[in-house]
Amino acid sequence: MIKVGVIGGTGYTGAELLRLLTGHPNAEIAAVTSRSNQGELVSDIYPNLRGIVDLPFVAPELDKLSGCDVVFFATPHGVAQSSVPGFLEVGIKVIDLSADFRLRDQSVWEKWYGQPHQASGLLSRAVYGLPEVNREAIIEADLVACAGCYPTSIQLGLLPLLRQGCVDSSDIIANSASGVSGAGRQANIATLLSEASDSFKAYGASGHRHQPEIEQGLEDIAGQSVGLTFIPHLLPINRGIHTTIYANLVDLNVDVQELYERHFKNEPFVDVLPAGSHPETRTVRGSNYCRIAVHRPDNGRKVVVLVVEDNLTKGASGQAIQCMNLMFDLPETLGLMMPGLLP
Amino acid sequence: MIKVGVIGGTGYTGAELLRLLTGHPNAEIAAVTSRSNQGELVSDIYPNLRGIVDLPFVAPELDKLSGCDVVFFATPHGVAQSSVPGFLEVGIKVIDLSADFRLRDQSVWEKWYGQPHQASGLLSRAVYGLPEVNREAIIEADLVACAGCYPTSIQLGLLPLLRQGCVDSSDIIANSASGVSGAGRQANIATLLSEASDSFKAYGASGHRHQPEIEQGLEDIAGQSVGLTFIPHLLPINRGIHTTIYANLVDLNVDVQELYERHFKNEPFVDVLPAGSHPETRTVRGSNYCRIAVHRPDNGRKVVVLVVEDNLTKGASGQAIQCMNLMFDLPETLGLMMPGLLP
Amino acid sequence: MIKVGVIGGTGYTGAELLRLLTGHPNAEIAAVTSRSNQGELVSDIYPNLRGIVDLPFVAPELDKLSGCDVVFFATPHGVAQSSVPGFLEVGIKVIDLSADFRLRDQSVWEKWYGQPHQASGLLSRAVYGLPEVNREAIIEADLVACAGCYPTSIQLGLLPLLRQGCVDSSDIIANSASGVSGAGRQANIATLLSEASDSFKAYGASGHRHQPEIEQGLEDIAGQSVGLTFIPHLLPINRGIHTTIYANLVDLNVDVQELYERHFKNEPFVDVLPAGSHPETRTVRGSNYCRIAVHRPDNGRKVVVLVVEDNLTKGASGQAIQCMNLMFDLPETLGLMMPGLLP
Amino acid sequence: MIKVGVIGGTGYTGAELLRLLTGHPNAEIAAVTSRSNQGELVSDIYPNLRGIVDLPFVAPELDKLSGCDVVFFATPHGVAQSSVPGFLEVGIKVIDLSADFRLRDQSVWEKWYGQPHQASGLLSRAVYGLPEVNREAIIEADLVACAGCYPTSIQLGLLPLLRQGCVDSSDIIANSASGVSGAGRQANIATLLSEASDSFKAYGASGHRHQPEIEQGLEDIAGQSVGLTFIPHLLPINRGIHTTIYANLVDLNVDVQELYERHFKNEPFVDVLPAGSHPETRTVRGSNYCRIAVHRPDNGRKVVVLVVEDNLTKGASGQAIQCMNLMFDLPETLGLMMPGLLP
Repeated sequence: MIKVGVIGGTGYTGAELLRLLTGHPNAEIAAVTSRSNQGELVSDIYPNLRGIVDLPFVAPELDKLSGCDVVFFATPHGVAQSSVPGFLEVGIKVIDLSADFRLRDQSVWEKWYGQPHQASGLLSRAVYGLPEVNREAIIEADLVACAGCYPTSIQLGLLPLLRQGCVDSSDIIANSASGVSGAGRQANIATLLSEASDSFKAYGASGHRHQPEIEQGLEDIAGQSVGLTFIPHLLPINRGIHTTIYANLVDLNVDVQELYERHFKNEPFVDVLPAGSHPETRTVRGSNYCRIAVHRPDNGRKVVVLVVEDNLTKGASGQAIQCMNLMFDLPETLGLMMPGLLP
Repeated sequence: MIKVGVIGGTGYTGAELLRLLTGHPNAEIAAVTSRSNQGELVSDIYPNLRGIVDLPFVAPELDKLSGCDVVFFATPHGVAQSSVPGFLEVGIKVIDLSADFRLRDQSVWEKWYGQPHQASGLLSRAVYGLPEVNREAIIEADLVACAGCYPTSIQLGLLPLLRQGCVDSSDIIANSASGVSGAGRQANIATLLSEASDSFKAYGASGHRHQPEIEQGLEDIAGQSVGLTFIPHLLPINRGIHTTIYANLVDLNVDVQELYERHFKNEPFVDVLPAGSHPETRTVRGSNYCRIAVHRPDNGRKVVVLVVEDNLTKGASGQAIQCMNLMFDLPETLGLMMPGLLP
Repeated sequence: MIKVGVIGGTGYTGAELLRLLTGHPNAEIAAVTSRSNQGELVSDIYPNLRGIVDLPFVAPELDKLSGCDVVFFATPHGVAQSSVPGFLEVGIKVIDLSADFRLRDQSVWEKWYGQPHQASGLLSRAVYGLPEVNREAIIEADLVACAGCYPTSIQLGLLPLLRQGCVDSSDIIANSASGVSGAGRQANIATLLSEASDSFKAYGASGHRHQPEIEQGLEDIAGQSVGLTFIPHLLPINRGIHTTIYANLVDLNVDVQELYERHFKNEPFVDVLPAGSHPETRTVRGSNYCRIAVHRPDNGRKVVVLVVEDNLTKGASGQAIQCMNLMFDLPETLGLMMPGLLP
Repeated sequence: MIKVGVIGGTGYTGAELLRLLTGHPNAEIAAVTSRSNQGELVSDIYPNLRGIVDLPFVAPELDKLSGCDVVFFATPHGVAQSSVPGFLEVGIKVIDLSADFRLRDQSVWEKWYGQPHQASGLLSRAVYGLPEVNREAIIEADLVACAGCYPTSIQLGLLPLLRQGCVDSSDIIANSASGVSGAGRQANIATLLSEASDSFKAYGASGHRHQPEIEQGLEDIAGQSVGLTFIPHLLPINRGIHTTIYANLVDLNVDVQELYERHFKNEPFVDVLPAGSHPETRTVRGSNYCRIAVHRPDNGRKVVVLVVEDNLTKGASGQAIQCMNLMFDLPETLGLMMPGLLP
């Protein structure tokens, strides 16, 4: 039984970790932390866990988590970096769901997050947590920086094309749309139901923090520089990311459907739909699947890839547990094979 | 391993059965039937099951299901009754999610459903599938008529009060609201997103098919006649039932909070919230829990009971599997302990 | 042209006043105030008004509004009372959408709002702004306290029955459900889309600030004391209130349909639906109508009244303008005859 | 007073025409037709119109509409073409909201709609109803083929760039998302609330009927051939279209913000937002505005245009009335200046 600590248990990725861990046969939730809610029951904030998780929130301190085999950081960006070294020192593995260790280039991180990085020495030690790209390294890692929600959908959507050099990597467009849970559980006018429901909009069109992570990941895959235009949009739903990718084929003879099916045929959580399909976010609601369809309108040069995932599951907490399974030599799919909740 | 057949697998309760059965450690889906979609893959209609359920729909005929230990009928009302006798004869247990065997009084059934009952001889053999009321009989049953979605919420909500004779049973009000999935997966203008979303309304205010089932159930519990006003409403969401019950206490000294906590303390799927709480449908989304809160405004004569459940889970398919567990001597909670999907 | 000031223009009732006033042929928006957003354009907060309302927010001070014929207070409870006397002194009429002047009994107000009332001398001068009950007094008033959103739906729903003494006034139930905009435009976790969407719950079941206003109104109508159980619920939509009222007839021979049609036949904004109907909140979205249907299940003693309104329009800003029309001798329906936005 | 007939009054664009016409000071609804619902009141289908539109549906026959000055066809594609000649012959102007007369090339129409065109002789007489492109011709027209919902958003979004030759017209991407009302009011499983809510998906990724209309329009604007990739998506809301356009600048020195502001500065219904903005569909809900923002991520070659409109208003019925105003020498904005319904 793996003893698990969840740091930052009041946010949505923390809650999703708890939901998934309660169904994991080889994991046991040892402690859940929250600075602001310590002493309260976890199930007071998340009543869906009543009768299932009976723990109180404890302070986010090392001694509260010293019996853990692994801790997950489900904290805002900037929080994990100061605590991670302490955990690693005492032999506790760390899976960070925030952006703190995703970028290898410290200066890029500091530019986008507007603060000095407090554990830059660990940036090279951290393994990027996207199993479909990085499985072997994750198995060996003691510090995993889970891929972000948008970056996961975009990297998985482009993986076969970029790996094979099938598209012009200098002009790629990722048009993404996310449910509101991606904005977290903070009091905020812009994400009130009365502001965000029954509406749709783009945001961050002039630049978004996820951009450098996506570019770094795509360049790792492509082995060359990548020119990406990334525009995120806000969907009036809780969960779900849909990314529509546009790229230009360099070889018009490639059979993109066959390419995708072949590339992902052994991936347990990437489901390539039959030709002509359109994935729906509801088919992955609460599940760890990523569903992909590939189109070539009019059989032309443009390839259009449609990708869906649940931003809280494959885009965050499910992926984190997938990484945990790898790090602890468990079957990769353990505790993660539930279908999406539909309808 | 229990071999399970699902009859009527294209509807939402059928899909929910499949979702739950895939996570049940002692059940195996042997066959899924659909008259209209036979030959197609189940996962073509329900892509959330891709990679998890690889069966095609087969015709709803006995020989296709002859290897089953139990069959679930997830069919429209009026369909199960002609086939059930055949299954029972060959020793296959039947769990019917439709209304066909819920009413003991044949004439009442025929009045509300407007057709002669074709297996009226089985009405007395059928056991009403509400474990919290009828557990012992379900264990012995080979034909279970699962309680309906609204009736489950109302009977559980009133169970302690009526059992103890704490309220005037001649004037009870159940004001219920259900998600749209309760209307099923049929092409229908009234349940289009453009008609039912961003709105709220009552329906059936002058009489509803669930009324006789609810009254029969409440009278069984109370041991006397019950006067019920039941008004259902349509919520602009997929899943979830919320019932607000109003009744008049006959003894003002009863501690209703204590009564509910005591009554349900051993029930695995009924969660009595702390005094002052208000259950939210989202806390039971996709789960088999029923959450209840009891209020006495101004400490007066009126008791107000708030009940939530997922109409497709505790209100239908989860409850059906709970009955199956009982009928097959399995732990009642097996395969059903997942928390609600929140957010 | 009536010169109008809107005090508290950043909230939803303020925004709704502006929307409606831009279509009013005899009103001109002279000033819109906001303490926190002064200097910003109104249309920066409410981009739907771009090109239509070109004013900036100004400070909520008398001299900024001295040219007005009437000011609307669309402020949180407790704000209007200190400023209202100043406006009345200089001859500016006041229409208050908050609760400050709705209760005649100062001690009840102070109990529920937890603060001393600062203009208690005006409580008796204020006229309760529900034209269907109080039209003549509104015409003469210089200070109108608009009826609240829930209270409007409940009073209109019970008006014919209580006026005629047709029901037992000691046991009335109002089961209401409101869209989230009723909670206002404040940063608040509970009304985030991720918390309030795709869900339904009751709130305030043990007591709610609207209760004394509703009781006062119903007692004025009935001419006797009223026993009311009022339970509000939160709908996962922006706009709309639906109230389901339960009462017991004292005379089983009354034709409730005829009673309602007769009572409201000259009311421009109360629409009694044909027998057997169920009003939908979407039919009044953005409109000033209140739609009502009356049912008697099984032709029994219980009468069930279904009422819908838009909480921001007939429940707040539309009603306020209806009052303004009366106070300024204009046709009561001026600027208010738009149909609901459907779908 | 212009006497107006609405043909096909049961669909959503028909209902929207009626809603808008009731607020139009110079128009009078003379007749509303429906083959299937004749004899019923319009307000039985659209209760938001109760008390405002008291007409019954009549049969869609010329003699029922002979007193009209203009008729609107709000019918499915393929219906208008056989009746239009009759109306024109007797001097009744026709505004068609369907696709019947939008394409000048008969063979392209017949290919996409799979039927012979029955009034191909009128294709060259029909004027394309997009006032911002075609105002002068509309003023003179007696047959207007209103621009479609997606095509309106894309053409307005690209108008300044293509007119000025600022972008490479051979590689343009339009990533659009529409509310479900665009699919019309037909019984259909795919647009049930339980299927389309709480989800997001692309559709028609391999080819869509709107494509030739959009290309024809863009080529008219550009004066040269255009290579367009158009991917529509389905939003889980009623109303609203959001289009995100991607194109490559040919001249990096162009000030796109200035270009858009200058181009549209006299257009009453096109609102160019300040630099850095992101338009939201809710700001145009129920209004005739189109709001546009232009971005150049990282000040690079790629220009990203964000466009919102209400698919039923500026994308259909509002635009049709705008055309009517032009055809009858009325102020173009008459009856159309209402702000969006927000929240």
